[in-house]
Amino acid sequence: MSRAIQLARKGMYTTHPNPRVGCVLVKDGVIVGEGFHLRAGEGHAEVNALAQAGSDAKGATAYVTLEPCSHYGRTPPCAEGLIAAGVTRVISAMVDPNPQVAGRGLAMLAHAGIDTSAGLLESEARALNPGFIKRMESGKPFIRLKLASSLDGRTAMASGESQWITGPAARSDVQKLRAQSSVIITGVESIIHDDSALTVRAEQLALPEALEITKQQPLRVVVDSALRTPLSAKILKQPGRTLIATCSTDQLLQRALSDAGVEVISLPEAQGRVSLPALLDWLVSSEQCNEVLVETGATLAGAFMAQGLVDELHLYFAMKLLGSDARPAFSLPFAKMSEQIELKQIDSRMIGSDLKLVLTPVYGEQ
Amino acid sequence: MSRAIQLARKGMYTTHPNPRVGCVLVKDGVIVGEGFHLRAGEGHAEVNALAQAGSDAKGATAYVTLEPCSHYGRTPPCAEGLIAAGVTRVISAMVDPNPQVAGRGLAMLAHAGIDTSAGLLESEARALNPGFIKRMESGKPFIRLKLASSLDGRTAMASGESQWITGPAARSDVQKLRAQSSVIITGVESIIHDDSALTVRAEQLALPEALEITKQQPLRVVVDSALRTPLSAKILKQPGRTLIATCSTDQLLQRALSDAGVEVISLPEAQGRVSLPALLDWLVSSEQCNEVLVETGATLAGAFMAQGLVDELHLYFAMKLLGSDARPAFSLPFAKMSEQIELKQIDSRMIGSDLKLVLTPVYGEQ
Repeated sequence: MSRAIQLARKGMYTTHPNPRVGCVLVKDGVIVGEGFHLRAGEGHAEVNALAQAGSDAKGATAYVTLEPCSHYGRTPPCAEGLIAAGVTRVISAMVDPNPQVAGRGLAMLAHAGIDTSAGLLESEARALNPGFIKRMESGKPFIRLKLASSLDGRTAMASGESQWITGPAARSDVQKLRAQSSVIITGVESIIHDDSALTVRAEQLALPEALEITKQQPLRVVVDSALRTPLSAKILKQPGRTLIATCSTDQLLQRALSDAGVEVISLPEAQGRVSLPALLDWLVSSEQCNEVLVETGATLAGAFMAQGLVDELHLYFAMKLLGSDARPAFSLPFAKMSEQIELKQIDSRMIGSDLKLVLTPVYGEQ
Repeated sequence: MSRAIQLARKGMYTTHPNPRVGCVLVKDGVIVGEGFHLRAGEGHAEVNALAQAGSDAKGATAYVTLEPCSHYGRTPPCAEGLIAAGVTRVISAMVDPNPQVAGRGLAMLAHAGIDTSAGLLESEARALNPGFIKRMESGKPFIRLKLASSLDGRTAMASGESQWITGPAARSDVQKLRAQSSVIITGVESIIHDDSALTVRAEQLALPEALEITKQQPLRVVVDSALRTPLSAKILKQPGRTLIATCSTDQLLQRALSDAGVEVISLPEAQGRVSLPALLDWLVSSEQCNEVLVETGATLAGAFMAQGLVDELHLYFAMKLLGSDARPAFSLPFAKMSEQIELKQIDSRMIGSDLKLVLTPVYGEQ
């Protein structure tokens, strides 16, 4: 199963909107077939492993990181494939949270006389697909909020001057976060001040398959309540799609942006701003988004935090002080200590000369 | 020598204003005597080791973490003691930076026909006494600035509410920093807002010798330009001495504080505030301060940083966000990225649920 999880990771940057899955077929203590899911529309992990095993699959045990599917999607059900190949035992790390499957795959196998079980290395398998699992279980995407700040918690000077706070190794790490995300969300202020492109760049990815990965860019979303994104913005001229989420009803501005090749969606407003929960719902229902990366300034970062929408904070700290007039990382106007947001540390490591912390907000009763 | 350094550490909290020193006497591959310096006025490391060895010292090799002294202080020169005991070889980790010694101890030994050398584990030996060495070499004390903040770089709410940001383990670690310091400096704002006592408290020290250590409290200094320290302040009622450094010439206020048992010193002002370099000079010349701990709010912390006076930053980060209206850790009004203070990380570790970073400011051409 450990090997199957390793294989599943090979799909880390490409399976969207599908989950990352790995499969190993073992017979008489020897691996006879291995496979993983690379890209939606292409073979599932089980199909690829069965193809490699050929007739050796007969009598083999299949280790799969996710319950084999039972439904017809873009490919036929994997459970059927395993039955047809004569596999005698299927060990699954976890039951598929997809309501279309949800145990039906294992039931189909058991009904065909195959010995089934689930739960081996389950937490490691779940960690492969936080977004897919959250979307299937709750209809919401998994949200990572990334911020780079100085040790005094500042992201830019008051003038907006900010490049670069962290070093090249940290920026390359952010490229990986982008590449594994279905969507990157930013705020219009970041577009106006930093003119960010928010693309995945092959030369910064530091991965052997970088060129292949960057062919499919994550969807870029600008939260822009009043349609202030300039037509000259870099983000509008990049490969892949850019979408502007607004609550402005200005037809002229919408038309100008559409003419520039940008998709504009109108969302309900909440206190004069784009409703973030409505945006996330839209991203799930229209774009099947699993993992979302939020890369933005203090206002939008603060809104995501304050509304309890963040699953993981990825904080990069540069070993420097930018001073008390510089911009804060989060706009969070708390008056009392009791309003503080507590965080649980998940990971801590040096990336080049910067410190990276990964944390989960503890949102109290939520 | 490694054992001698270990022994020297036993004086970590008590030798002020003397250095921490350890000594091991070895004869025929066997340790015949060990000693360390515990307290000013009591036996030096060499004397204690020689006493333990007795007649076995004859023909032994002495490993000492600091060059044996050559001058009459409160005790006679250790070099003489080693000669008298018949030691045949003296290996010293470092030459004594004290201009009264500075090689004379080793020369005295060599003159008596003893084989001498210096430099074994020198950097480890220097780390025992950063304050003593800096004071001897430059006439300045070694300054640690301690700050506890949230991950968004805040130390208190705008209202002043702040207790407690970090957990009990971090606070106990701060007690150790206090205990190894000759002086603790704070600002009058911290006294007014937090009513800090700034004592070393035995029950929080988590050390077996805690009761013994806390009998000798570090000198407490309040930087108070306008003599605003309330007579009711907790810090004035603690065991040990409290000193107020001011540039106010108000005789009535000075008298009231003196009557309350507080020492008041008048220092030159720099831009309407107490001159910090003048304070540090005074602490060296009048109090022989080796290590200084600065525990204070944003204004004074910012001044120490901006004036390039800090040797080590000890930052404790609590895993929480206090929000953008909360107080900053350092008042440093930089406008451009080029004014930033770069920091070099020396240590990073978890203390309870808090992250501690130790850093050295990189002050450019200084």
